[in-house]
Amino acid sequence: MLAVHLENGSVEMRRVDPPLRPPGYALLRLIVAGICNTDLELQRGYYGFSGTPGHEFVAEVVEADDRALVGKRVVGEINLACGDCDSCRRGLGRHCATRAVLGIVNHPGAFAEYFTLPESNLHVLPDDLPSERAVFAEPLAAACEILDQVAIPWGEPVAVLGDGKLGLLIALTLDAYGYPVHQFGHHPDKLAIAAARGVHTVVTTGALPTAAYDFVVDATGSADGLRAAAQLVRPRGTLVLKSTVHGTVGVDTAPLIVNEITLVGSRCGRFEASLPLLEHRIIPVEAMIQARFPLSEAPQAFARAAAPGTLKVLLEA
Amino acid sequence: MLAVHLENGSVEMRRVDPPLRPPGYALLRLIVAGICNTDLELQRGYYGFSGTPGHEFVAEVVEADDRALVGKRVVGEINLACGDCDSCRRGLGRHCATRAVLGIVNHPGAFAEYFTLPESNLHVLPDDLPSERAVFAEPLAAACEILDQVAIPWGEPVAVLGDGKLGLLIALTLDAYGYPVHQFGHHPDKLAIAAARGVHTVVTTGALPTAAYDFVVDATGSADGLRAAAQLVRPRGTLVLKSTVHGTVGVDTAPLIVNEITLVGSRCGRFEASLPLLEHRIIPVEAMIQARFPLSEAPQAFARAAAPGTLKVLLEA
Repeated sequence: MLAVHLENGSVEMRRVDPPLRPPGYALLRLIVAGICNTDLELQRGYYGFSGTPGHEFVAEVVEADDRALVGKRVVGEINLACGDCDSCRRGLGRHCATRAVLGIVNHPGAFAEYFTLPESNLHVLPDDLPSERAVFAEPLAAACEILDQVAIPWGEPVAVLGDGKLGLLIALTLDAYGYPVHQFGHHPDKLAIAAARGVHTVVTTGALPTAAYDFVVDATGSADGLRAAAQLVRPRGTLVLKSTVHGTVGVDTAPLIVNEITLVGSRCGRFEASLPLLEHRIIPVEAMIQARFPLSEAPQAFARAAAPGTLKVLLEA
Repeated sequence: MLAVHLENGSVEMRRVDPPLRPPGYALLRLIVAGICNTDLELQRGYYGFSGTPGHEFVAEVVEADDRALVGKRVVGEINLACGDCDSCRRGLGRHCATRAVLGIVNHPGAFAEYFTLPESNLHVLPDDLPSERAVFAEPLAAACEILDQVAIPWGEPVAVLGDGKLGLLIALTLDAYGYPVHQFGHHPDKLAIAAARGVHTVVTTGALPTAAYDFVVDATGSADGLRAAAQLVRPRGTLVLKSTVHGTVGVDTAPLIVNEITLVGSRCGRFEASLPLLEHRIIPVEAMIQARFPLSEAPQAFARAAAPGTLKVLLEA
């Protein structure tokens, strides 16, 4: 079968054997996959990764222990948890210390014709949910995760910093939940996607306001964003960190302590939260699709995804 | 009158005029004051400070608009708030953006024979609360602040990193509130103060446990402490930052995000929380007093307080 292979910064197509299906796992045939910033970071060597990436996908079940799954179109949770540790017993398999992660840690990813996942990770899609919407289930779950972690009072304005893919999904999700959202970014064309749904968007040119919001989400992906967000949040306010900035960031912790800021690290979320938003067409994810490539042209797709200002690039099998 | 003066790293005694009492303010005569790490940092130039420090005190009211206060023994909240801004209207004068702070920002401190504070900042002490206990009202309030900010489930173990003055007050306070406290530090003699009240203390020599607590308090005062605390806390756990580390700290934010840690900056607290703990002798603060100096010997007192391993040093008028 055809599979994407990342190694030492290069993206290449390889012919490899299809994976074996362990008991309890489904063998999946890729329909469509999304390239995420994490995939671009894996390409750059984050986690010392080499292998097949890909964790945003829609696939068809080819084989499974549960015969009812065969032939179904599915999405899947990306963390392969042990099921037995403290975190797993608390329903937090996403934090299992010995977890593998699809296409990221110790489990080959979805940028291949075939791949495997535990059957318990799968969510069967309703027929009327198109694959090009459903492929957003994973990144949208990461946006929904914020509301799983932080109880934002109803009606409270929330500032979202950043207008990349995740920033847009976060702004649109908070807006869908009824919060007044003020999104700050550098790209009028991207902000327009959120503005079309009623998000108040601000093209930032100079300094941001100081101590203006009790709830701020940093989705800039940059260390500067964290510093800007720390300035934007009010004393005793909450700053949700959605930007994984790799390596050590210089942070002046004194103002965080003096102003008693709460910083909340936030990562993956539950598909149970994101799928209804996609099924009921509440989040206009299609507006974020900027290019589609066949799987065999993944190297070109990665190059397109890495071009500045690009939103979602899809790979189609 | 005699007043301590800090400037360019030096501590000296000066003869100055007693302060004028503005309307609404009380003129206070110092009884006893405590030297805090912040005072040592002011000496080193933090906040570009020059002037009279001191914010932990017990004093007698000499003059006040409210005649009932005159002659009373008092402690006082250190933030002089505008009373009119957003923060003040929410009862958070401690976060008023235009606040002065006794002995720290724009208001001469308590290391002087006389000083002033708004009458509304004062708490009259009961006769049976000795001054040498009451002088801990301010630092103990900072320890109590943790429970004002974070709802720790009853019975949940809490790890406290650091065995300095603040670390001990935090461990003893959480213990007094019924939490199982595990305090980690380097100094057996200091940890013994907490251990005597039933705190489980650990003299740390090598590495700390990994992902062992849902609630961790960093009171080490060092950037290394923050990194150690981040390792000690479980995924989805809460890390309370009590260490004001000045300047920029290199923080690897990726594990905070991947593990969805909540960081809570924490500073001053309410005296309403700390005074009952002192009045009812619940916290053995006397065990932390290591030296007493007359106000006129403040330079020697500062030198003693700065010696490694020193707990509380008092100045007596």
